[in-house]
Amino acid sequence: MTKMQDDRKIVRVDLDTRSYDILIGNDLLGHAGGEILARLNCKKVAIVTDRNVGALYLDALVESLQTDGIETYTITLDPGEKTKSFDNLIAVVDGVLEARVERSDAVIALGGGVIGDLAGFAAGIVRRGVHFIQIPTSLLAQVDSSVGGKTGINAPHGKNLVGVFHQPDLVLADTSVLDTLSDREFAAGYAEVVKYGLIDQPDFFHWLEKNRTEIFSGRTARAEAIAKSCEAKAAVVAADERETGRRALLNLGHTFGHALEKATEYDSARLVHGEGVAIGMVLAHEFSARMNLASPDDAKRVAHHLKEAGLPTTMGDIDGTLPPPNILMDAIGQDKKVKGGKLTFILTRGIGEAFIADDVPPSEVLAFLTEKHPQ
Amino acid sequence: MTKMQDDRKIVRVDLDTRSYDILIGNDLLGHAGGEILARLNCKKVAIVTDRNVGALYLDALVESLQTDGIETYTITLDPGEKTKSFDNLIAVVDGVLEARVERSDAVIALGGGVIGDLAGFAAGIVRRGVHFIQIPTSLLAQVDSSVGGKTGINAPHGKNLVGVFHQPDLVLADTSVLDTLSDREFAAGYAEVVKYGLIDQPDFFHWLEKNRTEIFSGRTARAEAIAKSCEAKAAVVAADERETGRRALLNLGHTFGHALEKATEYDSARLVHGEGVAIGMVLAHEFSARMNLASPDDAKRVAHHLKEAGLPTTMGDIDGTLPPPNILMDAIGQDKKVKGGKLTFILTRGIGEAFIADDVPPSEVLAFLTEKHPQ
Repeated sequence: MTKMQDDRKIVRVDLDTRSYDILIGNDLLGHAGGEILARLNCKKVAIVTDRNVGALYLDALVESLQTDGIETYTITLDPGEKTKSFDNLIAVVDGVLEARVERSDAVIALGGGVIGDLAGFAAGIVRRGVHFIQIPTSLLAQVDSSVGGKTGINAPHGKNLVGVFHQPDLVLADTSVLDTLSDREFAAGYAEVVKYGLIDQPDFFHWLEKNRTEIFSGRTARAEAIAKSCEAKAAVVAADERETGRRALLNLGHTFGHALEKATEYDSARLVHGEGVAIGMVLAHEFSARMNLASPDDAKRVAHHLKEAGLPTTMGDIDGTLPPPNILMDAIGQDKKVKGGKLTFILTRGIGEAFIADDVPPSEVLAFLTEKHPQ
Repeated sequence: MTKMQDDRKIVRVDLDTRSYDILIGNDLLGHAGGEILARLNCKKVAIVTDRNVGALYLDALVESLQTDGIETYTITLDPGEKTKSFDNLIAVVDGVLEARVERSDAVIALGGGVIGDLAGFAAGIVRRGVHFIQIPTSLLAQVDSSVGGKTGINAPHGKNLVGVFHQPDLVLADTSVLDTLSDREFAAGYAEVVKYGLIDQPDFFHWLEKNRTEIFSGRTARAEAIAKSCEAKAAVVAADERETGRRALLNLGHTFGHALEKATEYDSARLVHGEGVAIGMVLAHEFSARMNLASPDDAKRVAHHLKEAGLPTTMGDIDGTLPPPNILMDAIGQDKKVKGGKLTFILTRGIGEAFIADDVPPSEVLAFLTEKHPQ
């Protein structure tokens, strides 16, 4: 699925008429105009970004687009998870309409997962859908959220509870922009890389154990890890675009993770998404061990690797006080991976052996959370 | 495509995995629970309605659902086009989440086009899509907006500029509820019935000319007109679900109509959607005659029939002052039926011979509007 073109990797997401390319390589930002025009007959774009990312990369992107004759309009938002709100959705929709972006034109997300999810949702609902291009600037967005068409915002009831499936027409994963990420941001994205190994690729997890330092220092292994992650995600999405089955495996660690993000009020100073997923994956392995599904040694090995990567691995690693276990349970119940009142969890039989369990007793989860709760 | 079952008609909308039935007949409201459970494994529904419709039909619907063991939750909104706003969308989304409606559950729209468009949009974005059932209570909703999956709200920039395609799982068109419609409301819906004749079924238009009084008085001809309209709509939707081509024919009269609705600030005392479409269809026929595409006699015949049905047929029929022609033009330009800066209009070569014209010169439209403008 991965092709090399000069120094670039291309991963194709196969979805019939909605198929698209993920380009992975250096200086894609500077060639955005050409790559877009090679795929879309697009006269105008609305670029959605946040202040931090915009300050670093907006000028280069706008220059590339304008050089290729594409008219640009920019919408700049506050950084952070709290930006994924109805208020900001309305602001983006309004901006896209103000720019008179037509159905043949595009919305570009220049930023991390928050910007991608929000801009993609806006692209999916303006005129009932305009073209959409992802230019992910965080590792997390490059290996996960920019691929697969899930878009959305958070609601008072929980994370990502409102959104649409709207596939991008192109993903440009420019690896050179990752050099400006903080260690904490890079590690948060790395949690999702590890996830693909834990789901069904034990060999990839072993490879990550061996190559972690090289991936973090930005050598060839980094681009390889990104391409491998995009391939893994693309395969799952192609098999189950709208998450009626297998795609749910990608939620490994996410049910616990979302509950913790809600419990910390989406305050990125305390917890970012990838960190919630890291803790969530350890909890999923520990809970699986508690249910006698997997060996406790696997949970320890996962925790060890994530900890070495600089990630939190227990609820106690989160600054400040957490709500009591019953409140965490309530957040889990409201999370969208619920069917007919029973809890659906991604559990595991060991590293690389995750599976969908749709009959998890809430009482067991509550007892487990009570045991693991730090306060 | 229409089947008879007892005294009911069933029109099937063929859309692969998203196919669904439209049931047309008396007292469907009282059998809603059984019809839903025959198709969906649904434990809970959130019913969206408006105060007027709710006062008349909500109790009967709730009783039918509860008798069949379906848990209900109701969200009641103000009547009128202004309800199709982001504020109300947020309120409905919040209510549906509060009710803990899950992916296997459903949102029900009990009302006219406004409620259907808004509730369908909410159903399309909560948890990235839950089941959706239309129980249209206006003629307009029964023959047009409840079928085909277009949902949406209005934006300051124009009507229906924000929304998704989200097909219902079932449409229950209970013809007995039409008896409580005012003459004005019934006539507004009738404009969309006439539209199907004008697009490509001249025989149906002739039949309407002969049967108008019987349709208005509620005899067998009424149910026949509704079923025929649903069939016409279902055929177009099945051929072009996402309006990449032929479906645009359903916009006959709508580009002018939407501009007039915007010009009257969606004030239903001055103009409702079907009335805008009536005037718009006459204008489309007149403009086609002006462009030497059709005979002026056809425009007169269309205007005569709509006028006899109690509908406005000229801009001068609208109470109060309209904005000047250039402002109307601006609204037309912002309307979503625009591609690459050129205007796309549905024009006609005569009754039942509508076609998509994608190269209409804005200057001709402006001159025409100036000529027809009443002030």
